[in-house]
Amino acid sequence: STPIRATLFPGDGIGPEIAESVKQIFKAADVPIEWEEHYVGTEIDPRTQSFLTWESLESVRQNRVGLKGPMATPIGKGHRSLNLTLRKELNLYANVRPCYSLPGYKTRYDNVNLITIRENTEGEYSGLEHQVVRGVVESLKIITRQASLRVAEYAFHYAKEHGRERVSAIHKANIMQKTDGLFLKCCREVAEKYPEIKYEEVVIDNCCMMLVKNPALFDVLVMPNLYGDIISDLCAGLVGGLGLTPSCNIGEGGIALAEAVHGSAPDIAGKNLANPTALLLSGVSMLRHLNLHDKADKIQNAILNTIAEGFYDGKTAKEKTRDAD
Amino acid sequence: STPIRATLFPGDGIGPEIAESVKQIFKAADVPIEWEEHYVGTEIDPRTQSFLTWESLESVRQNRVGLKGPMATPIGKGHRSLNLTLRKELNLYANVRPCYSLPGYKTRYDNVNLITIRENTEGEYSGLEHQVVRGVVESLKIITRQASLRVAEYAFHYAKEHGRERVSAIHKANIMQKTDGLFLKCCREVAEKYPEIKYEEVVIDNCCMMLVKNPALFDVLVMPNLYGDIISDLCAGLVGGLGLTPSCNIGEGGIALAEAVHGSAPDIAGKNLANPTALLLSGVSMLRHLNLHDKADKIQNAILNTIAEGFYDGKTAKEKTRDAD
Ligand SMILES: CC(C)[C@H](C(=O)O)[C@@H](O)C(=O)O
Ligand SMILES: CC(C)[C@H](C(=O)O)[C@@H](O)C(=O)O
Repeated sequence: STPIRATLFPGDGIGPEIAESVKQIFKAADVPIEWEEHYVGTEIDPRTQSFLTWESLESVRQNRVGLKGPMATPIGKGHRSLNLTLRKELNLYANVRPCYSLPGYKTRYDNVNLITIRENTEGEYSGLEHQVVRGVVESLKIITRQASLRVAEYAFHYAKEHGRERVSAIHKANIMQKTDGLFLKCCREVAEKYPEIKYEEVVIDNCCMMLVKNPALFDVLVMPNLYGDIISDLCAGLVGGLGLTPSCNIGEGGIALAEAVHGSAPDIAGKNLANPTALLLSGVSMLRHLNLHDKADKIQNAILNTIAEGFYDGKTAKEKTRDAD
Repeated sequence: STPIRATLFPGDGIGPEIAESVKQIFKAADVPIEWEEHYVGTEIDPRTQSFLTWESLESVRQNRVGLKGPMATPIGKGHRSLNLTLRKELNLYANVRPCYSLPGYKTRYDNVNLITIRENTEGEYSGLEHQVVRGVVESLKIITRQASLRVAEYAFHYAKEHGRERVSAIHKANIMQKTDGLFLKCCREVAEKYPEIKYEEVVIDNCCMMLVKNPALFDVLVMPNLYGDIISDLCAGLVGGLGLTPSCNIGEGGIALAEAVHGSAPDIAGKNLANPTALLLSGVSMLRHLNLHDKADKIQNAILNTIAEGFYDGKTAKEKTRDAD
């Protein structure tokens, strides 16, 4: 049978070496995928003279599935984060991160089993900021009915498909009554269409307190962009960090761009020290998106067994991901 | 000697009964404080026909110290949160929350010893929001040089006075380059005046991940309003929750309004079930602010001993504070 074409953006720093591992493991598992590799990253590609070419974007649009490695976000270098650019250009409206305890990898928490679903296109990430007068600056947080309904719909649909019980909408509507208020209103509208799924609303500060006290209180969480950024990392921390948790971005028309969300760790790049687990688990999400569940199970089990046998060095991974943002 | 006058706002729900406990304990410890009690809360006071009178504010302004119980924040009731009103009216620019492991009270974490210092007047709490067109709303986050310098100065001064080693500024300047960028710039300026204190900058999502993995990485944290709201609750969760952590708001000219930050728990109000620990520990912060360290030590030790002996029922407290925001 003809292989499925998927886009691969190895990314910066340790990206190329962990992408190489994924390719090797996919090959060993006979995954019927043909990679279409493009460079997207913070260095200008000498072949294309670009950070990000039209061909790279077109590749994901055509293939509808892809996998990306870490891309650094230089602070204050005047150009927009490439992660954000990809989200915008490909309209990747939902970021989905499953977060579960890994047997054999000890953290302070057992039996974590959460899914964070983050609105990925607007909110605090609008990029709209300006100086009002000297010493007074403002940023705009934008919430729209359209994007809120879309991500809420995705969250409830996901919960239903995956046999989940409850969706919690995370917000700060007691302070941002209009923006987070609109987000909640949209979640409520969608919740009504899914009477079989329990629905609740939790204020973000209280949510973080409850997550560290008792993460088993939660199941599927849906939230605006920045809260999703914060809470998905917090949840990753509960089970071991960004080196161990997969992520997948969902776009209109069924595009799925899976990604490792840890940093590009330039300090250890090229030294054969980087751990490919997060990228590999993200690759597994991609396979599930393609309904290649046999292959996904095979690779995921191999990863879980490897971790259970104690080959994953969490300490080093923490240090490696300390640059993660 | 003449007693020191301090304002007391018992607040809503369980507020009056926990305030009563504080008064009793202060009396038993011979604390030379004379309380000036005022009602501020979400019910209209029948005596004054008001939520919040000018006399209540004036009392704090005159006394320069006060203690407040919980005040509920009704979502979408059209009037502004009273907590916020007090912060604005009294210019309470820094919210300080020490957060330490309590011997005998078991959580998943040992040796937590952090101070969160939150900018308390601007940022995402500007209250400026509007609908742009139907289905599109925006909120403004405002960061000013003046408020950022002021809270950074407070944080470094605090670190120095209390023999702390490091100040971490928490931000998302990779996304909000102008607002959080200005906040960081101010922190850096102040950091230069305190070469003996280590200074670092940590992106909020990464900070939350590190906090749940290893809170011992942090010492004093300073941050804009919403991040402070989120991280202070997260940190409280590490050591047992808002029922166990004190809070104190610092205003211009040395005003200090200590407060319990848990909810008003209307469901258990009046049933003699509420635990006064957080309000009492906040009372202790107030005593320290007044340099009444003998009395503060005496009461704090009594609290710590009581907890060490196992009288504090964390499970119930968690349920009680589930309405906390
Ligand atoms: C790198 C950064 C721009 C990004 C974000 O803030 O979204 C990252 O933290 C993430 O979660 O993917
Ligand atoms: C009640 C609410 C308005 C308040 C806040 O968001 O600041 C609370 O969470 C706090 O931290 O004091």
